[in-house]
Amino acid sequence: MARLLQPVCWRLFPWRGYCSQRTQGELSKGFVEALKAVVGSSRVSTTAIVRDQHGHDESVHRCKPPDAVVWPQNAEQVSRLAALCYGHGLPIIPFGTGTGLEGGVCAVQGGVCINLTMMDRILELNPEDFSVVVEPGVTHRALNTHLRASGLWFPVDPGADASLCGMAATRASGTNAVRYGTMRDNVLNLEVVLPDGRLLHTAGQGRHFRKSAAGYNLTGLFVGSEGTLGLITAATLRLHPTPEATVVATCAFPTVQAAVDSTVHILQAAVPVARIEFLDDVMMDACNKYSKLNYSVAPTLFFEFHGTKEALAEQVQRAEEITQNNGAFHFSWAKEAEERRQLWAARHNAWYSALALRPGSKGYSTDVCVPISRLPEILVQAKEDLKASGITGAIVGHVGDGNFHCILLVDPEDPEELHRVKVFAEQLGRRALALHGTCTGEHGIGLGKRHLLQEEVGAVGVQTMRQLKAVLDPKGLMNPGKVL
Amino acid sequence: MARLLQPVCWRLFPWRGYCSQRTQGELSKGFVEALKAVVGSSRVSTTAIVRDQHGHDESVHRCKPPDAVVWPQNAEQVSRLAALCYGHGLPIIPFGTGTGLEGGVCAVQGGVCINLTMMDRILELNPEDFSVVVEPGVTHRALNTHLRASGLWFPVDPGADASLCGMAATRASGTNAVRYGTMRDNVLNLEVVLPDGRLLHTAGQGRHFRKSAAGYNLTGLFVGSEGTLGLITAATLRLHPTPEATVVATCAFPTVQAAVDSTVHILQAAVPVARIEFLDDVMMDACNKYSKLNYSVAPTLFFEFHGTKEALAEQVQRAEEITQNNGAFHFSWAKEAEERRQLWAARHNAWYSALALRPGSKGYSTDVCVPISRLPEILVQAKEDLKASGITGAIVGHVGDGNFHCILLVDPEDPEELHRVKVFAEQLGRRALALHGTCTGEHGIGLGKRHLLQEEVGAVGVQTMRQLKAVLDPKGLMNPGKVL
Repeated sequence: MARLLQPVCWRLFPWRGYCSQRTQGELSKGFVEALKAVVGSSRVSTTAIVRDQHGHDESVHRCKPPDAVVWPQNAEQVSRLAALCYGHGLPIIPFGTGTGLEGGVCAVQGGVCINLTMMDRILELNPEDFSVVVEPGVTHRALNTHLRASGLWFPVDPGADASLCGMAATRASGTNAVRYGTMRDNVLNLEVVLPDGRLLHTAGQGRHFRKSAAGYNLTGLFVGSEGTLGLITAATLRLHPTPEATVVATCAFPTVQAAVDSTVHILQAAVPVARIEFLDDVMMDACNKYSKLNYSVAPTLFFEFHGTKEALAEQVQRAEEITQNNGAFHFSWAKEAEERRQLWAARHNAWYSALALRPGSKGYSTDVCVPISRLPEILVQAKEDLKASGITGAIVGHVGDGNFHCILLVDPEDPEELHRVKVFAEQLGRRALALHGTCTGEHGIGLGKRHLLQEEVGAVGVQTMRQLKAVLDPKGLMNPGKVL
Repeated sequence: MARLLQPVCWRLFPWRGYCSQRTQGELSKGFVEALKAVVGSSRVSTTAIVRDQHGHDESVHRCKPPDAVVWPQNAEQVSRLAALCYGHGLPIIPFGTGTGLEGGVCAVQGGVCINLTMMDRILELNPEDFSVVVEPGVTHRALNTHLRASGLWFPVDPGADASLCGMAATRASGTNAVRYGTMRDNVLNLEVVLPDGRLLHTAGQGRHFRKSAAGYNLTGLFVGSEGTLGLITAATLRLHPTPEATVVATCAFPTVQAAVDSTVHILQAAVPVARIEFLDDVMMDACNKYSKLNYSVAPTLFFEFHGTKEALAEQVQRAEEITQNNGAFHFSWAKEAEERRQLWAARHNAWYSALALRPGSKGYSTDVCVPISRLPEILVQAKEDLKASGITGAIVGHVGDGNFHCILLVDPEDPEELHRVKVFAEQLGRRALALHGTCTGEHGIGLGKRHLLQEEVGAVGVQTMRQLKAVLDPKGLMNPGKVL
């Protein structure tokens, strides 16, 4: 009830930070009825269990749940919901699959969680133009299943079966980015509901051209904005031809340096590798145990090559020569489909394999990205820091992009250990910054890295981002407390 | 003198459009002395001839020259110049090579033109990280000459030997974009002097990572902002390995449809073509006459393939098969370096070849870009419209991106013909918009397409762009009158 009085207060004192005055509590009955009038009464929930489910993602970040969860079915409903919240000065938190890793869906100031998973239609497929339009509930696996007969696919694959618009919101990437780019490179247009309910098409309604020089790149601004500028209600994505053939290989190395040197030489030789993933000895041991495999427990690269059969043979031969010149133990092809599947399943299960090293633990994943020449240095430092801090951590990374993750195991009930993990992650973030890198390659800033963002982009960078936030979300209602 | 009083007026009436009150005139002696105090007296000019040289680009757009031209030598000087202009409420127009095509350097409201060509150092080359940092006066050819021994190159090539930061400012692309992307894809970081003189590093100072999810994508916002948000004083660019070998080929077709169908099939077959350029019959005829060649006067594709020798043979064979299946007349390789050079020289001279069709004429180039499946339709329409309007026009395009140019010949002294050209260009722009395309693939909005931009991105899109402009350039001093 108190909350419904606040908009009046806001209108009277527009220069006062409205959100900072808010305290979490129950929504008024009238407001909940207004939500129900938009989406139907079965699609609004204020029960504790539903709110709790929507108050966290897959990370260790925990905070307050939203005050209500709603499931709109189309952009028009999202627009009306936004306008309603805007009128009442209530925060909005967009929710997709909840598979984020930086607390992006935590309802720091309560408010209304807009769960977009019921909007899961593939709206338009243009095979000749290599593009598709999806609603926010479509996941990347669902899209690729739909595309199976078209000869096209969408390559961005962050591991979890995340929603494509959620991936756009966090500028996700994953294992194929070295060849196919990240969400930044593969989003052509976005439909966005702005905080006050207006509908924006970042590249113009219905447009799906490959390139443009028409005005400010609004698409690029909303990709990676983590729900803090608006709600993405549709995305136009760039598709790629399905590779004619695929070869997968693994290669173990005596040192981290040898693995990274091989990566640099492969990229310099313009071998169009589709995936080049690094796993350290701890990670390989965890994968062997979890997936019942028998790889060498040593720094290892997993490769995938895409192309015609003839082109593949040449790519693999070049990669093999380069790894051997860098002292690789052996280079092993997975020629059969089953063997390939097993190998990538092991890579995709890295998170669970690491967690299984210490049953009952929770995971926290770091996400730094550095210029590739600085990778050996920071990987060696990270392993030393892990040892010194007594934390169990396994390393896996998209080495072709300079991006890697330490999966840190932590007892969530042990505040001292949680603190050590936090100290380690911050130290690693600062090491990356010192090496001209970034604190986050693909997971986003969310709750946990706001102070590192300031160090990364500097005072003027943060001021500029704050100006953009203030002008596009003047009441500070869109996913408050994130990024900035 | 009057102008120096205006900032006071602005401070008193901040809600009034300051710039709209300004009238062009001479700068006060004191202000010119202040400019000289920053850059040295030999690096400031207010002579008519120098101002005139800086009042236009290569297009038919003509308007007022700036009131003064200054040549700073480093970012610190640019910052001081910006602060000076900001304090006096004077417009700033960044100037690179002046090779733009949409009037981007016209001094609509007078002001100070900042010529950045004396800042032409390559500041940092990181070959292992595939990145380089350049000052704004470095052109793409100068960079590639510098890179020759490194095994790396920068592929974005808009035809003219434009400055790299100017290319970033207009989101340029060119013939290699189908494989290597545009400036949007190849700028990793920018150093920008903001309107009030503050220095922004869009991805953080000194950073040159491949990908990031850290906060709003400021780099993407400034790429393509056409100098309306700040002055780019350095760019960190992504480099690519020099191809081991190159093959060039041409292929003539009975129809435009057959040429475009071949393009779509080649892209669907994932042949990693580096360049795929379309020239219509008029353009081929012009090239034959200008470059003394003997190609068929028919719709033609120019190809370039990059790769290892083995991979190239396969790429060319596939492309040849696809073009033959689409009824191509013949597919002709240019195997020798000299033949290759001659062929691309003919393509790069397309502009001058077209102008030579009618000596004494000026050229205006359209720049629409559509989803590739709509290309045959719009190309046929464009040719019919050309015939109906009686304008001489030759068509050349980056067909793999759906982007093409009609080079329209016009007598600049004939207002009726200028009007017909304008009507044709607008009609073509609207045809592209109706086919889900954009009015500009790579030349930018500048002066001439502001009304088309509104139709393209819609009311909310333009409102959003205006909000961004207003918050980042509150006095409206950065390259006023452009884009919005």
